[in-house]
Amino acid sequence: MTDLGEPRPLSGMRVIELSSFVASPLCGLTLSQLGAEVIRVDPVGGAADVHRWPVAPDGTSIYWTGLNRGKSSVTLDLRSDRGRQALRDLVTAPGEGGGILVTNSGGRDWMSHDRLASARPDVITLELLGRRDGGPAVDYTVNAGLGFPAITGPTGGQGGEQNGGQVVNHVLPAWDVAAGLHAALAVVAAVRDRERTGRGRRIVLPLDDVALATAGTLGYLTEPQIDGSSRPAVGNYVYGTFGRDFPTADGGRVMVVALTTRHFHDLARVTGTRDAVDALESATGADFGTEADRYSYREVLSALFARWFAAHTTDEVTRALAASSVLHERYRTFDQVVAEGDLEANPLFAPLEQPGLGSYLAAAHPATFDGRHMTAGPAPTLGADTDRLTAEGH
Amino acid sequence: MTDLGEPRPLSGMRVIELSSFVASPLCGLTLSQLGAEVIRVDPVGGAADVHRWPVAPDGTSIYWTGLNRGKSSVTLDLRSDRGRQALRDLVTAPGEGGGILVTNSGGRDWMSHDRLASARPDVITLELLGRRDGGPAVDYTVNAGLGFPAITGPTGGQGGEQNGGQVVNHVLPAWDVAAGLHAALAVVAAVRDRERTGRGRRIVLPLDDVALATAGTLGYLTEPQIDGSSRPAVGNYVYGTFGRDFPTADGGRVMVVALTTRHFHDLARVTGTRDAVDALESATGADFGTEADRYSYREVLSALFARWFAAHTTDEVTRALAASSVLHERYRTFDQVVAEGDLEANPLFAPLEQPGLGSYLAAAHPATFDGRHMTAGPAPTLGADTDRLTAEGH
Repeated sequence: MTDLGEPRPLSGMRVIELSSFVASPLCGLTLSQLGAEVIRVDPVGGAADVHRWPVAPDGTSIYWTGLNRGKSSVTLDLRSDRGRQALRDLVTAPGEGGGILVTNSGGRDWMSHDRLASARPDVITLELLGRRDGGPAVDYTVNAGLGFPAITGPTGGQGGEQNGGQVVNHVLPAWDVAAGLHAALAVVAAVRDRERTGRGRRIVLPLDDVALATAGTLGYLTEPQIDGSSRPAVGNYVYGTFGRDFPTADGGRVMVVALTTRHFHDLARVTGTRDAVDALESATGADFGTEADRYSYREVLSALFARWFAAHTTDEVTRALAASSVLHERYRTFDQVVAEGDLEANPLFAPLEQPGLGSYLAAAHPATFDGRHMTAGPAPTLGADTDRLTAEGH
Repeated sequence: MTDLGEPRPLSGMRVIELSSFVASPLCGLTLSQLGAEVIRVDPVGGAADVHRWPVAPDGTSIYWTGLNRGKSSVTLDLRSDRGRQALRDLVTAPGEGGGILVTNSGGRDWMSHDRLASARPDVITLELLGRRDGGPAVDYTVNAGLGFPAITGPTGGQGGEQNGGQVVNHVLPAWDVAAGLHAALAVVAAVRDRERTGRGRRIVLPLDDVALATAGTLGYLTEPQIDGSSRPAVGNYVYGTFGRDFPTADGGRVMVVALTTRHFHDLARVTGTRDAVDALESATGADFGTEADRYSYREVLSALFARWFAAHTTDEVTRALAASSVLHERYRTFDQVVAEGDLEANPLFAPLEQPGLGSYLAAAHPATFDGRHMTAGPAPTLGADTDRLTAEGH
């Protein structure tokens, strides 16, 4: 185990994670970074995600080691009564901060909340489901059924329509990420409650409901109920404000967002279009002091601004915008982010010696507490802690 | 205030939120659903997000009301000493669960952590930044600079390359969502710690670092460090496993994911391609029992499977797949999700009477605690609670 330094906010918590893929391992990793002891339990040989891509030249999974940093690893024969008892013993072991199970392998009577609560009444269990009925679902299927791919990607050019039956999947598994963070939050909320009341909790979190709740909160599922509309596909524009990508003279591309009137005035000034924008505003009766009209006239405005971007290199563009209030960023690829030294320059990242991968810059928890980042140690070797942590191992 | 029913896990917590846009209001909403009292403070007339699109016919913001459900609303003249003192008084008021500020309007000496801690030493502040250096950034600019748009969307057809300079923005502001949930988790972790140790915390959470930490954890920033590679653009395929969209005979489209060997065998059986898949495996020496080879041969396999999808209607396809283990979902639009009755059928959603919008089905917190969803009441009228909650209002 890594020396965790000063007590972290979740020190004393002990979480058993019977998990695979993204959401529940991310829950455990995040709790671990915040100071909890996290023990990942796998079947002997590993779960379905143990060799998942990307992999290093020797076959070590970059994915698995990234998501399981800082955890202990126990392997058990979960088809045997002894293995199942060992898991239950781990979860229900005494200790104020223990009695916590996070899993995406629920629906098994032998490790149900009630079964565990019969051994430790204040147990907290969090079961991550695909769908609330227990049916399977993963990030990409959830997103397909919800509606984001139908409004992502190039439009015919005018926007305001669905993409002619085309769909574009989001690459980032955002629902997995949101579910993992929701899971961590729900567990810590339950722990805080238990420390005051002694009460255990049975928490169930369906991935599909994470997506539906988020889309509902952000308005996507409210619009059709209020006025029958559905969020239109607007390509690379930002809905409801002024924002778009612009190609530059040297083949680069820059994302530009003008949320406020000040941003927008600065964008017109930098691109030398103030007179044209003012004339357009007068002639049309639009009010570019409102986000609504900046959005409504986005294509005319973009065509005006685009001339300046096309006439300047990416460096010239970013230098000029950096001297203004306009929100902007060059589009980059992951290897460019690494090659340009962003990780070395950011205290969020620190060298981690990971067996199978060697030393690389790994990210800490994204928040600082009193100015300090909280890191996690390397991922364990599968099963490395079985002997130490279970009677089964002896 | 809505009757919250039985005590919720965060009951007794009291959070002051000086916020706008997505991440920090989502933090407050989530804490409110879990039982905290959340008081949103705005400048008189509202913050920059008060009229944000989408809006209802009478101009009420669907966006603002969605993200601020269940909160109280206080408006203050934050340019005046009296208004600033009123904000500090709200944050530092006595009470075990109080003394908590969440804001994306940091960097102001008059409401700095140190200034607040001089009045209440155990204060917990969470400041959401764009960048860690205090510079501005929003979800779309962060994502552009990180690399996801460069590997999203259609490829030339062969995959394995960047998209020829094309970029596709993700529509879902996933970093805002992740930052809001990270913020809520960090605050609750700090509260749990304070209840044990009496210690306050100064938490800083940059949106850019949320994105970098997530991309790092998921391997996107590790691959370039290990072997110089960058995650390729693979269109609508899922990286590292078998998953893709397929068009159907009646113009529909279905997302299909076969994560495990069982899923994959079922997909070959349903599509009537078992013999062809077996022959392909023998002839090439591939092992379709591994995710790596199913991914590596994705284009050949997809072309085989696609014939069956193209020959069947969406209903036929989904019926056949539903009788198998294959993960799948029809692509839909947001209005289809609503029109097909998903919200009525899901206890996650309950009618909410929202002034300006009327009654609509609003989402609760996505997790159930002991079988119960936790809802939030309607969003407040701007400034409705100023008199009740501040001396300034009297």
